[in-house]
Order: sequence, then structure tokens, then C-alpha cells
Amino acid sequence: MLVALSAFFLFLIAGSAVLSRARDIRTPDLQGDNSPANVIFRLEDEAMEQWRQGNPLRWAEISADEISYIDPNLASPIIGIDAYREYLKALAGKVAYDASEYVHPRVALYGNTAVLTYNYHSLCKDRDGVLKRKSYWNTTEVFSLIAGKWKIVHSHWSYIQGKRADSGI
Amino acid sequence: MLVALSAFFLFLIAGSAVLSRARDIRTPDLQGDNSPANVIFRLEDEAMEQWRQGNPLRWAEISADEISYIDPNLASPIIGIDAYREYLKALAGKVAYDASEYVHPRVALYGNTAVLTYNYHSLCKDRDGVLKRKSYWNTTEVFSLIAGKWKIVHSHWSYIQGKRADSGI
Repeated sequence: MLVALSAFFLFLIAGSAVLSRARDIRTPDLQGDNSPANVIFRLEDEAMEQWRQGNPLRWAEISADEISYIDPNLASPIIGIDAYREYLKALAGKVAYDASEYVHPRVALYGNTAVLTYNYHSLCKDRDGVLKRKSYWNTTEVFSLIAGKWKIVHSHWSYIQGKRADSGI
Repeated sequence: MLVALSAFFLFLIAGSAVLSRARDIRTPDLQGDNSPANVIFRLEDEAMEQWRQGNPLRWAEISADEISYIDPNLASPIIGIDAYREYLKALAGKVAYDASEYVHPRVALYGNTAVLTYNYHSLCKDRDGVLKRKSYWNTTEVFSLIAGKWKIVHSHWSYIQGKRADSGI
């Protein structure tokens, strides 16, 4: 009985460990298979493409009701899809650049939650038609599988090595 | 049979929806109960207290092997606990301030994964002993329950409204 019980507890512990560790840490690509990492990265890139061409509202469409959103223009996070949509609406038609560059995209998967990180550059063509980096971003996107669809539940955008004039430690 | 089957599918769908949505979005407090939100926030605050007093290594102790870490001093994320520990070691004894202020801490729970966000200020006493804000942070900490312990799997620190001299869109 003691042996059987121990084996049962061992099963529970082992099962719990497997479920709670990252099942998968991947470098996704836009031509990749249909693994969660690639599905998520393609979803992100598709919204980025719309953003790049002046439509910011795709970000809201792939975000969850409870999203929390941080970027360097904000004094505090935006909470909730309604406030986020209003924020995006004000940017409609105001963004335009030529291409996107993702550096080292990485997806760490924890059950039905995924942490996508990458460095991002918007690119503009110079006079000679050569693409040049115009912005330098750190990006965190936390996705959760909600009713069968991956949705952004948290976004954090910051400038790489972005500083405040008054920043302390 | 059809009814029984439908009820079974309904159970599956409902169960899946409950599991995949945030089960809990809370404003934790340091005196709170033992809910995941409060356990996580107290873990964070305890590491912050050690950091504040010159020991940065508690952050590594509560982080997972696969941690990805972003802050405004870095050109790209730190990946993995070994690199993160080395980074922290170099800061040992170099940080000292008087108190911490968390603004609107929030935990969104997705199964065994939690997204903790807050704005953070380090505080120093002025000549009259009055605590003054010295830094202005956006903070994202993603925790995962690994072998029964909440561990940080991703950190993103940025200065509130931190900018680059060359920043574009």
C-alpha cells in the first residue's frame, strides 16, 4: 500500500513538473510549421504588417479583453481592450515605413501561455533605395490560448537602451 | 446518446475555456492572503528588498533556468540563468536606496503562468528625511510554477517614457 501510494505521488509530482515547465523554447520563423511558436509569430508579423501600412487596429483584434499594454509614450500601462483600442485608433494612418526586421525572435511555451520576445527594427529606404534601421525596440508579447485562438494578454514595448533625462539607479 | 455526447462536448469546451482564460486578475498586496497573486508579489518584493540593500543575486534564485531578461542597459536580452547570474554578480554591493514604491501591481493568472506588472520607484531620503522618487520603471515579470515553486521566466524593465536620442516611430 505504501509503495502504491508513493508511486501515485511520484506520478503526480512528475506530471506536474512536466506541465509547469516550458514545454518548448523555439526560434520561430515566418515560413515555419504550424507549431504554437510559429503560429504566434506569424500572427504577430501579420499585425505588424498592418501597423506598418497605417492600420493599428489589428493589434486590438488579436488581443484579449484584459490586455495590459506598456510603451514608452505612456505614463502608466493601458488596461483593457476598450482603452487599448481607443489608443490605437488615434494612431490610424499616422504610421508608415518600408519593412520590418525581427532579431532573435523567441517563444517560450508554458501550457496555453506563450512568451514571445524579440528585438524589432522598423526600416526605411534611403535615397539610394537601401533599407536602414529607423527604430530600436525591445518587445515582449505574452499570448494565451483563449477559446482556441492565441490572444495577446500583455505587451511591453521599450526602446533598446532608452533612458530618461532624470533616470536614477 | 446524442444528448449525452453533446453534454460531454459542452463539458470539454467549457472546461477548456475556463482553463485558458485568465482565472484571476488581482491587485495583490504585501499583507494579502496566500493566493498565487500575493505569493508572487511577496516573492518579488523580498527579492527587491535584497536588491535595494546591495544583494542582486536573490533575483537569480527566484528565476528559471531559461529566463529571458531585458533592461535599459542591454543591447539585447540576456538568455539563461548563467548569463543572468553573471550580470547580477557585477552589481553586487553597488545598489543602495531607502525604500520601494509599487504603483498598481497587477497579477493576471493563466493556469500555472502569471503576468505581474507594476510601475516601480526607488526612493531616497532627502536632507529633511523625506522620501523622494529617484527612478521611474515599467516592470513586467512572467512567473511560472515550476516543481511547485513560482519562478521568473521573463523580466522586462524599462524606464517610464524612456527614449533614445535617435528613436524613430
